[in-house]
Amino acid sequence: MERIGFVGLGIMGRPMVKNLLAAGYDVCVWNRSRPGIDECVAAGAREAAGPAAVAAACDVFISMVTDSPDVEAVITGPGGAIEGLAAGALVIDMSTISPAVTRDIAARLADQGVAMLDAPVSGGDAGAIAGTLSIMIGGAAADVDRARPVFEVMGKTITHVGPIGAGQSVKLCNQVAIAGCLEGVCEALTLAQKSGVDPARMLDAISAGAAGSWQMSNLGPRIIDRDFAPGFMVRLLQKDLRLALGAAQDVEQPLPVAGLVHQFLHQIEAAGRGGDGTQALARVLESLGGTEVRRGSTGD
Amino acid sequence: MERIGFVGLGIMGRPMVKNLLAAGYDVCVWNRSRPGIDECVAAGAREAAGPAAVAAACDVFISMVTDSPDVEAVITGPGGAIEGLAAGALVIDMSTISPAVTRDIAARLADQGVAMLDAPVSGGDAGAIAGTLSIMIGGAAADVDRARPVFEVMGKTITHVGPIGAGQSVKLCNQVAIAGCLEGVCEALTLAQKSGVDPARMLDAISAGAAGSWQMSNLGPRIIDRDFAPGFMVRLLQKDLRLALGAAQDVEQPLPVAGLVHQFLHQIEAAGRGGDGTQALARVLESLGGTEVRRGSTGD
Repeated sequence: MERIGFVGLGIMGRPMVKNLLAAGYDVCVWNRSRPGIDECVAAGAREAAGPAAVAAACDVFISMVTDSPDVEAVITGPGGAIEGLAAGALVIDMSTISPAVTRDIAARLADQGVAMLDAPVSGGDAGAIAGTLSIMIGGAAADVDRARPVFEVMGKTITHVGPIGAGQSVKLCNQVAIAGCLEGVCEALTLAQKSGVDPARMLDAISAGAAGSWQMSNLGPRIIDRDFAPGFMVRLLQKDLRLALGAAQDVEQPLPVAGLVHQFLHQIEAAGRGGDGTQALARVLESLGGTEVRRGSTGD
Repeated sequence: MERIGFVGLGIMGRPMVKNLLAAGYDVCVWNRSRPGIDECVAAGAREAAGPAAVAAACDVFISMVTDSPDVEAVITGPGGAIEGLAAGALVIDMSTISPAVTRDIAARLADQGVAMLDAPVSGGDAGAIAGTLSIMIGGAAADVDRARPVFEVMGKTITHVGPIGAGQSVKLCNQVAIAGCLEGVCEALTLAQKSGVDPARMLDAISAGAAGSWQMSNLGPRIIDRDFAPGFMVRLLQKDLRLALGAAQDVEQPLPVAGLVHQFLHQIEAAGRGGDGTQALARVLESLGGTEVRRGSTGD
């Protein structure tokens, strides 16, 4: 069994480590702050002094942090994993970051005989806890085969989508598709409300048909119930849309609606509500039309 | 059993009439052109000389035509149903038209003691043939109860969504939600293609998760296979989006993405491809980025 190193013990990383421990893996961890470390050590993980020390104690090094600069700091920065990794080790970055930065890091690692996979996930903390994440993997097929037993502990839908960076590209496509779909749901809800139709009845009538989506079924009812608690936070979708729009700029592909939704969500952030769930996009459409979507209400 | 009158024997109306005949209803029909009439008469319908004559021969008068002016012509225009309907008759308009025009027509009918329901459908010709349409109904509850046996012959999901006009409002919400969702799918596909990722693998990786939708599962693969045959034609979605944007203007609710998609689809119509399926929206994103989405391909 490969020895696992794991850096990034936030809301996602902690349950992922626990699942690896429960599956019998030896896991060595580090995190920027104590609570994540303490929780994982209590669950049976070993602790190391920093990314380089974690790297020196493992065969497979996993990072699960927030953004491109965080991954660079953990892997190629001073005291980063690159200082501890032996030739033949495998790095798996499961954060959601830039495909271009991913390829740069992979090239640096390759110079030392270290392979890399990018393997961002969807499914949220619920999926991380249940071990049912969707994992989108970029990299060489042999490395994917090597890592598959590890992925199978953490995820359910495990898809090798292309060469290094492709996992990140697919994750960004996922967020772009979500942006358009959620915007459509929010526009439909505000149109129903202003038209004097109970938005809940509207959703009941259309959710099972051609307008149906995960976003409609899962976030539509929360909007109607004025429940803006996060499944997935606005500020994290904003980070991902910024990455998607940057990647789109790199390849010169206009994404008009992903760009528009990114701009709209600045309004939520400006109101100090970046910690709300992404369904808060409805508030932007509501502010445009001067209405508020509510279950059972009809008209203004 | 109510005697049914049915005007509008196009791709939707014909199978709906046949299902009513198969269920044992007496159906009297009229259409602007012969083929629809001949097909329905061959299936057992009676033929009348025009909408007024159909109306005089039935208890429940159903219209299934294209747009608001068509419904006005058939019901309240010269020779329209209003000239033949007896007090106590029920008019059911199953076309997709303006909620405001619907309410105007209902008011004219009410002056003659004739009730009206608006009952637009989704599910396409496949749903019409199978008798599995989704039917969104606006009107008085007693009239909905009266018409329910008739609806149950033609549809599966039968939802009373509010007062007269509400069925049309909900149908327009349906089209608005579809517009955003389909745009997100098309943006994701073109980003994958330009990023060097096989769009088919991208769809496989994300369709079952939070980005998933009917539009993605049903139209995404057709785009990748360059199959632009219509399920639902661009020119009909354009008609519906025009109605939705008009209804939104009436109630002063901005719908930025529904408006943008409506503008984008003018490009498809300008290329003489208004008869293509709505998945042709992908061509607009492709033209913006100078790419073409294809299964198995990676990059430009």
